[in-house]
Amino acid sequence: MGDSPLTDAIRSFATAVKTCVVATTRPDGRVRQSVTYFHLDADDSVLISTTARRAKALDVARTGRLSICVFGHEKPFPSVTIEGAARILDDPARVGELTRRLTAAVFGGDQSNAPSDEDLQKAGRVILELTPERCYGASYIPEA
Amino acid sequence: MGDSPLTDAIRSFATAVKTCVVATTRPDGRVRQSVTYFHLDADDSVLISTTARRAKALDVARTGRLSICVFGHEKPFPSVTIEGAARILDDPARVGELTRRLTAAVFGGDQSNAPSDEDLQKAGRVILELTPERCYGASYIPEA
Repeated sequence: MGDSPLTDAIRSFATAVKTCVVATTRPDGRVRQSVTYFHLDADDSVLISTTARRAKALDVARTGRLSICVFGHEKPFPSVTIEGAARILDDPARVGELTRRLTAAVFGGDQSNAPSDEDLQKAGRVILELTPERCYGASYIPEA
Repeated sequence: MGDSPLTDAIRSFATAVKTCVVATTRPDGRVRQSVTYFHLDADDSVLISTTARRAKALDVARTGRLSICVFGHEKPFPSVTIEGAARILDDPARVGELTRRLTAAVFGGDQSNAPSDEDLQKAGRVILELTPERCYGASYIPEA
């Protein structure tokens, strides 16, 4: 985990919630937000599957930053924002490995029919990898 | 509604959900995100109660912009992002009126013991008012 700012409570919460609002900065300096699934990997990196042409991927390529707000789905709506440096992983073997790990973690079930590395590459799939530098705004996060 | 970009479906969805991830731009150009309740008023303005000293209020005062991502709490997690010009309303009578309207809409119940205009002013309460200019990323929004 190294210098990860995540606590055990935040780690447990984020792993359970699996959905977030991801925010990036557009070329004009304004905010872009969308909902996405994510996987918190063993080293506390946040992994998001997308395609290289999606606006959020282009924003990450340009700014090297990503912010996610993890937001529980029941009252009192626990939440925390995690931000840090981000990069696009596009090596086919690495994308395949991480996409399968993310899919298994988020959706569960058998991954034996999962797309191959080549299928993912043809579809333009990439992984956005956020290395957490700061967590803030933690509210109502249950104790781990 | 004038030039509001909200459709009936988005209006119904946002009115029902009541919670959002609000995003602003910090002085260093990076994104700030947090979870908040909001009220979609009759003219489609988005009202958020906060205090003048909160970081998001300072961001609005500086940038004149606000983005909210409205995010349903059940699968398949419907969502839409609404953005536009934003301003801080701090006239005590107006803050009192809008705060009571927002509180009634979000939490329901009797507002006869609600804080007075003077109480709200002493507490530094203000209203952030977002005038929607654009909705994007609408996913899984039920038909109105």
